[in-house]
Amino acid sequence: MKERGILAVVSGFSGAGKGTIMKALLERYDNYALSISATTRKPREGEQHGREYFFVGEEEFEQMIAEDRLIEYARYVDHYYGTPKDYVMSQLEAGKDVILEIEIQGALKVKEKFPETLLVFVTPPSAEELKRRLVNRGTETAEVIEARMKRACEEAEQMDRYDYLLINDEVDLCTEKLHRLIQAQHGKMTLHGEFVSRMKQELKDISE
Amino acid sequence: MKERGILAVVSGFSGAGKGTIMKALLERYDNYALSISATTRKPREGEQHGREYFFVGEEEFEQMIAEDRLIEYARYVDHYYGTPKDYVMSQLEAGKDVILEIEIQGALKVKEKFPETLLVFVTPPSAEELKRRLVNRGTETAEVIEARMKRACEEAEQMDRYDYLLINDEVDLCTEKLHRLIQAQHGKMTLHGEFVSRMKQELKDISE
Repeated sequence: MKERGILAVVSGFSGAGKGTIMKALLERYDNYALSISATTRKPREGEQHGREYFFVGEEEFEQMIAEDRLIEYARYVDHYYGTPKDYVMSQLEAGKDVILEIEIQGALKVKEKFPETLLVFVTPPSAEELKRRLVNRGTETAEVIEARMKRACEEAEQMDRYDYLLINDEVDLCTEKLHRLIQAQHGKMTLHGEFVSRMKQELKDISE
Repeated sequence: MKERGILAVVSGFSGAGKGTIMKALLERYDNYALSISATTRKPREGEQHGREYFFVGEEEFEQMIAEDRLIEYARYVDHYYGTPKDYVMSQLEAGKDVILEIEIQGALKVKEKFPETLLVFVTPPSAEELKRRLVNRGTETAEVIEARMKRACEEAEQMDRYDYLLINDEVDLCTEKLHRLIQAQHGKMTLHGEFVSRMKQELKDISE
């Protein structure tokens, strides 16, 4: 029987480099599956259904809620966002380590439902560096940058509810750290109930 | 300021290969300090004071208890064994990751006092393999082997109180796994209170 995968949630300030780390992680290792969120917002240019998001209608989304087919969901600025349960569960059962890249509120809901979930918060080494990264993207207006910094300020209030902190100094190193952190979770005692039971029985049998 | 070290307890059945793994870990990496226990039993041939154990008298040991200079202690077969606090604390403060190789009862006491302690239980892949290893040592009588298997049987009842399970299939791999597991703990959110406070403050300052 294949060992069940680890469920990990990765959150962090916009500009912390989560996306780059996820991409590097998936390119480097084949044991990960990145969960794809469902949303009722319209696809932006270049976005594909089933790649960036599952784009669904309002009614369909509400039906998913009613049928308990989402691990977590939230409404931001007139749109729903949520994590479909089926995909996550089937990947975990297939032995894949599943990563959800979601917001703090969603992360805490997932942890409540599945206490074994690993919550990782990604941050740049300083607020100044966060701002520098947002500015250097060159794609955001000053207003957007300001809004993101304000949002980071609010998010920081909850970051200590995460299990692990990942300071993104350098992408390669950070990717490797995240990989090792998730892999280490495979050793958690709570995941080895079957092994423990078998060992207890064998030791009884052999000592008699 | 140097980051504080991780306190890890490694326990496991006699014959699981703990000693070999500890040796390999200390040879391979220089960030570890192995705590040395104090005991009132007499040194065996080849054992050195301050290397295998601190050999102390009964009265001295009881004074250490009275002065709260032991993290944990227990009495086995007429002798005291305990973990001196000073060494562990000074090594942790110097940034070393400190490993205690102690019994289950001691491990649980340490965890009670210091909830951040990482408890790791080392086991061979099966009871049969455990017995094979004990027999292959060639140094133990059949009675000793039988007693160890009985003891393992009792210890197995408590193994699920540990945080992580480390199945020792192969020493090199197992050493590396233990190393990565301990290193991953440096990311624990609870160890980064200072960083989190600084980040919150910086974000406030920069967003104003």
